[in-house]
Amino acid sequence: MKTTYDIQYANNQHKAEDFLDEIQAKKPLFILTIATTETAKITGISAAGKYPEFTDYTPPADAELLLLGKCKSINGVPVTPDGIPTPALITMSALRLADVPVLVASGGLKVKPQIPFLDLGGNPGRDIRTGNAVDNAAEVIARAKIAGEQLAKTADYLVIGESIPGGTTTALGVLSAMGFDAEGKVSSSMPENPHDLKCEAVRAGLAAAGESFGSLAENPVRAISCVGDPMMAAFAGLVVGAAGQVPVLMAGGTQMTAVLAVVNALSSDVLCNVAIGTTRWVVSDASSDIRGIVSQIADVPVLAADLDFGGSRFDGLKAYEKGIVKEGVGAGGAAIAAMAATDGAVTKDMLLREIERNYALLMGTK
Amino acid sequence: MKTTYDIQYANNQHKAEDFLDEIQAKKPLFILTIATTETAKITGISAAGKYPEFTDYTPPADAELLLLGKCKSINGVPVTPDGIPTPALITMSALRLADVPVLVASGGLKVKPQIPFLDLGGNPGRDIRTGNAVDNAAEVIARAKIAGEQLAKTADYLVIGESIPGGTTTALGVLSAMGFDAEGKVSSSMPENPHDLKCEAVRAGLAAAGESFGSLAENPVRAISCVGDPMMAAFAGLVVGAAGQVPVLMAGGTQMTAVLAVVNALSSDVLCNVAIGTTRWVVSDASSDIRGIVSQIADVPVLAADLDFGGSRFDGLKAYEKGIVKEGVGAGGAAIAAMAATDGAVTKDMLLREIERNYALLMGTK
Repeated sequence: MKTTYDIQYANNQHKAEDFLDEIQAKKPLFILTIATTETAKITGISAAGKYPEFTDYTPPADAELLLLGKCKSINGVPVTPDGIPTPALITMSALRLADVPVLVASGGLKVKPQIPFLDLGGNPGRDIRTGNAVDNAAEVIARAKIAGEQLAKTADYLVIGESIPGGTTTALGVLSAMGFDAEGKVSSSMPENPHDLKCEAVRAGLAAAGESFGSLAENPVRAISCVGDPMMAAFAGLVVGAAGQVPVLMAGGTQMTAVLAVVNALSSDVLCNVAIGTTRWVVSDASSDIRGIVSQIADVPVLAADLDFGGSRFDGLKAYEKGIVKEGVGAGGAAIAAMAATDGAVTKDMLLREIERNYALLMGTK
Repeated sequence: MKTTYDIQYANNQHKAEDFLDEIQAKKPLFILTIATTETAKITGISAAGKYPEFTDYTPPADAELLLLGKCKSINGVPVTPDGIPTPALITMSALRLADVPVLVASGGLKVKPQIPFLDLGGNPGRDIRTGNAVDNAAEVIARAKIAGEQLAKTADYLVIGESIPGGTTTALGVLSAMGFDAEGKVSSSMPENPHDLKCEAVRAGLAAAGESFGSLAENPVRAISCVGDPMMAAFAGLVVGAAGQVPVLMAGGTQMTAVLAVVNALSSDVLCNVAIGTTRWVVSDASSDIRGIVSQIADVPVLAADLDFGGSRFDGLKAYEKGIVKEGVGAGGAAIAAMAATDGAVTKDMLLREIERNYALLMGTK
């Protein structure tokens, strides 16, 4: 380990250093995995849209922002009910600073993005309270695995992020079905984490599916099918396909632990090539516990981009310091990749300036 | 130029050598661009399927063969009415020998492949005799351009192939609309090239669109919209997006000249980074004239893989020497890329043995 850049090690420092060493100055490919689930429309669950229907537009809009530098499916950019902008702003800024190529993969969408995207044969997800949340999860995993195998040949390593409103609730669903204690431990994009609402939805979903806590420990595909979301199927397949060949940085917050549980059950041998990359806001969040969930699953390093928006001249960005949004669209992993790919030339300060520049452009502020 | 491998130069030897020099021992990404057009169902036009409806299944089946080593959308592999197998067998064998990564991009399909594919927002093509053959060609080109820009960052160069039954007729359509003399010069997958049928369809299409020979010389998007096919929009956009950054080998026969005409009209400055890669069967075909068409458009080198199936123990492969099939699914370009990527370690003899092995496996013969 020659340098640590602006990156924190959240758990196993030795493994995290090794991972960072391996990707240092190497060429990544960033893949944004998008999907929608009706779960996001449960009142009070998600901050990803002002109105429940808006959650259908957030993933395509995030994807458009990364590829086009602006959204097409919506005016402006996705914002929380308080007007805090999507973390895709961070991701876009990081990837552009380091000239990292981007692909978008769909696990199943209600609204398709107006950009090229990898179709993995999935459908939009249903409300997990039905106990029947995801169609043909096995097929989506299989197709994503094929894509992961091919894409692994095109880069030194992959960084995979996600955009799916409601995703921490479905994460709690899959983790619970597989027997991991995640109640009160998954993160939220809102200032007050609605743990009770999430637990209630998961319990209803497990009951509707005739399953219970831990009953699907050996059946990750059914866990996704019952109480997961289509992003997980796509994401897990990509990791399984790629990590046999190259390192994979799973870019996201506590949702990544659900994907990790699935990958661990499908193909634990690839985990030696896997790390989670997130933000300081996630690892220092008092209302969630990413380390506590990861430690139950596998000894996979968690790296956190030491982003700090405290000094920003924009209130919309300063809000990130209050624990709003925190992560998403692979923001933390993209920041880590930008720092590592440029061997530290991209710093958190440079990144904040670029984010502010893009924020001003896109929000029409000065 | 250190070595010529088993590759012929069909026109500008100097430029061809330079291109080959540039890709020698470099890492390619192969993209198969697939689409369907109702034009293929005109009686006597295409050999890509035994029955007209079968032409809807050929592109997805070809794509599946490249990624999976077998087809899912059909039993066996696509064959001509005489039982001659798809050139995807050549492509698959070449790409696997050289471990070249593959992506599939759709310009617009009636039947979707059961593999991951890049959705570029297009629809299946209509019969060109309607004069209204392709929907939203401009949007598909724009999205493909974005994909090309991103994918160019993941490889040293791109090899782009196509699979669309009826594609030489639509090629004649676009070439005619743009004022290039291609009557009697486009190739055919059948032993007897039905030039008259193709000309008739093109004339009907131009008339229905209110256009005439050369009237769309400056409007390639409308040429595709009226008498082209959705593969062309996807393919041309990919080339325009990628060739600004890296070399692009356009892998195909006379259909490539229509794409070349479109790229030349959209963005002629990228052509210095472009070559056409095809097979000996195309460049030595007496019933078509790829050089004659290319020379009217731009001084782009045409390379031909010197494949020779004369000594094959399978009649289905020997038939290629009689001018049946000849090219498709980027077979020639894939063979060239396999030779160049391995610095000549892959020879035409090694390739034939691998093709025969796969042929035996897939056709159930010995």
